[in-house]
Amino acid sequence: MTETRDYSGSGLVHVKNPHLDSMEEDVLYHLDLGTKTHNLPAMFGDVKFVCVGGSPNRMRAFAQFMHKELGLAGDGEDLADICAGTDRYAMYRAGPVLSISHGMGIPSISIMLHELIKLLHHAKCRDVTIIRIGTSGGLALVLTGIEAGSVVITDMAVDSSFKPRFEQVVLDDVVVRSTELDRDLAEELLTCSKEIPDLPTLIGHTMCTYDFYEGQGRLDGALCSFSSEKKLDYLKRAYDAGVRNIEMESTAFAALCRLCGLRAAVVCVVLLDRLEGDQIRAPREVLREFQHRPQRLIAAFIRKRLGLRPPAGNTLCPTE
Amino acid sequence: MTETRDYSGSGLVHVKNPHLDSMEEDVLYHLDLGTKTHNLPAMFGDVKFVCVGGSPNRMRAFAQFMHKELGLAGDGEDLADICAGTDRYAMYRAGPVLSISHGMGIPSISIMLHELIKLLHHAKCRDVTIIRIGTSGGLALVLTGIEAGSVVITDMAVDSSFKPRFEQVVLDDVVVRSTELDRDLAEELLTCSKEIPDLPTLIGHTMCTYDFYEGQGRLDGALCSFSSEKKLDYLKRAYDAGVRNIEMESTAFAALCRLCGLRAAVVCVVLLDRLEGDQIRAPREVLREFQHRPQRLIAAFIRKRLGLRPPAGNTLCPTE
Repeated sequence: MTETRDYSGSGLVHVKNPHLDSMEEDVLYHLDLGTKTHNLPAMFGDVKFVCVGGSPNRMRAFAQFMHKELGLAGDGEDLADICAGTDRYAMYRAGPVLSISHGMGIPSISIMLHELIKLLHHAKCRDVTIIRIGTSGGLALVLTGIEAGSVVITDMAVDSSFKPRFEQVVLDDVVVRSTELDRDLAEELLTCSKEIPDLPTLIGHTMCTYDFYEGQGRLDGALCSFSSEKKLDYLKRAYDAGVRNIEMESTAFAALCRLCGLRAAVVCVVLLDRLEGDQIRAPREVLREFQHRPQRLIAAFIRKRLGLRPPAGNTLCPTE
Repeated sequence: MTETRDYSGSGLVHVKNPHLDSMEEDVLYHLDLGTKTHNLPAMFGDVKFVCVGGSPNRMRAFAQFMHKELGLAGDGEDLADICAGTDRYAMYRAGPVLSISHGMGIPSISIMLHELIKLLHHAKCRDVTIIRIGTSGGLALVLTGIEAGSVVITDMAVDSSFKPRFEQVVLDDVVVRSTELDRDLAEELLTCSKEIPDLPTLIGHTMCTYDFYEGQGRLDGALCSFSSEKKLDYLKRAYDAGVRNIEMESTAFAALCRLCGLRAAVVCVVLLDRLEGDQIRAPREVLREFQHRPQRLIAAFIRKRLGLRPPAGNTLCPTE
C-alpha cells in the first residue's frame, strides 16, 4: 500500500484521523500542552514557520537568533520554553517562528511531529512551512568540490537501500510512504543560499538510517562485523545513487509532513566526510559555527518571505 | 543470520569490533567524553550498576535518590552532569551507580549504548549490571488483577509481530538478534519487589515499537486509518502472545547488552491500560509517583546486592 500527498487549497494542516473529532480533549502529552488546558489558537494561530532540530540547546539558540534577525522587541536571550513542564522536547517562539527540538532518530521525531501537527490543527494555523535544520555526515565531499561545513538541502529522503520510502508499521501491516520533499521550497532555499557569503550549499538526496554506528557503516561502534573496504563500497554506492549526506530523521519527517499537507524542507550541515572517517573530531567551536550555518540560511529565507531586510548587526554564531 | 550471546568468565564488557584496537583515540561524541581527554578508568572503573531511562530529569532524580539510598556523603541534590558539554544525553553518578538518559526510541538508545559500552570497555569495568527503568503502556491490567502504576519486569522483549528479535541493518544486510534478557536477574528483581509495600510487580513480555501512535495502535495521532475494533483485536492478540506492556527501546537494549556480555533487565511502570484508552491523562503528581516505582525497586535491589540496609528515612518520591 502506498499513500500519497494531499495539499488542499485551504492552507490548513490536515490531520487524517476521523477519531479526533469525537475526542472531548486532546492531551499532547510529550509537549505538555492540551486543548482544555491551553488556548492553542491564541498561543499558536499565527505561526507560519516551524523549525525543528535534534538538540534542545540548539533550538533555543535558533529561537534567540531569529528573535534578533526579525528585529523583535524585548530580550531574545530570555525566551521561555513553552514545553517547560516536560523534558522530552523543548519549544521556543520568536514572532511567527516556532523552534522545537525532536531528539535523535525516527521514533523520537515521529512522536513530536504527531503532536505538533495536531497542535497546528487545533490552533487552526494556515500556510505553515516546516523545516528540519540538522547535522549530518557527508559523502564524497572531495568529489563535489566542497568541504565539511557544507549545507545539504534534501530533494528526497531515502532509506538504507537508497529508496525514497518510509515504512510505517500500522497494526499488522507495513505501510509504505513517499518521502519526496517540496521541490519549489528546496529551490527557493538554494537561491537564498547564493546570496549569503561563506555558505557552500547543494541539493541532493539524504539517506536516513535507524542507527548511527552499524546502520551508517561506521567502524567505531561497540559492534562492527565488516571491513573498511565493505564500508567504503556501501557508502560509494550510496553516493552513486545520489546520496550526499546521512542523518536519522528525514524519511519520517518527509513522509508525515507530506501526508498532512505541510510544505517541508530538510537542511543539514555536514560535520565530516564519511569517506574520510567516522569520528567527529572537529573542535567544539568549529562544530558550533557549522551548526549555525543552516540557521543563517533559514533566517535569510524567513526574512525574505516576510519582506524584511537583513538586520543591522552581523549574523555571527551566537553562544549556545 | 542470527547472533548469540557471549558471557565470558572475565566479567569484562565485550566490545566486538576489531577496529577499535587500532584507534589512537576514541571520541564518544554524544557523551562528550573521550579516551584522550578523560581518564575513563579513573572516572568509571568501579561502576557496577548502570541505570538508563528516557528522561534526563528523571535520571538526575534517580541519581539523587540513589545518593540518599546508599547513604553517601555530601549533597545528593547537587550532582553534576558528567555529559554537561552536550545536551544529547545526561549522565550522573552516585557511588557505584551510573544513571544515564537515553531519549526516546531505538535509534536514540542505540547511540547511547554503543558509546556507553565502549566507555565501560575503556574503563575496564567488571561485572556490570545494566537496567532500563522506564515508562510504558500496559495491556489488560484488569485481566491480570492489577492496576495502572504496576511495574513490569521484562523476560523477553518482542517486536510488533510479537517475536523475540531485533532486526539491525548492517550495510546491505538485516541481522537478526536475540532479545532475551537475563532470567536470573529478572527473578531476583521480582523477589525484591515482594519485600516492598505498594509495589505491584509482574514478569512478562514487553513489546517494543518504532512509533508511539500508529505503531502502538493508538487512535489519537495525527494519522489513524484503523477502527477501534481493529486496534483492540491487535492489542488482545499481543496480550495472548504474552505481552504485558509496550514501550520503545527494549529490543535494541536487550540485543546490544546481550551481545556485549552485560547482564541486563528492563523494568517499566505502566502509566495506563491501553485496552481502556490511548491518552495519558493521570495528573502529573500521580504520574511522578508511578515513575518513581521502578526507582524504588532498583534502589532496593542495589542495596541488597551491596549488603546495605534500607536507609533510616522514607522512600517517598523526590521532587524532579
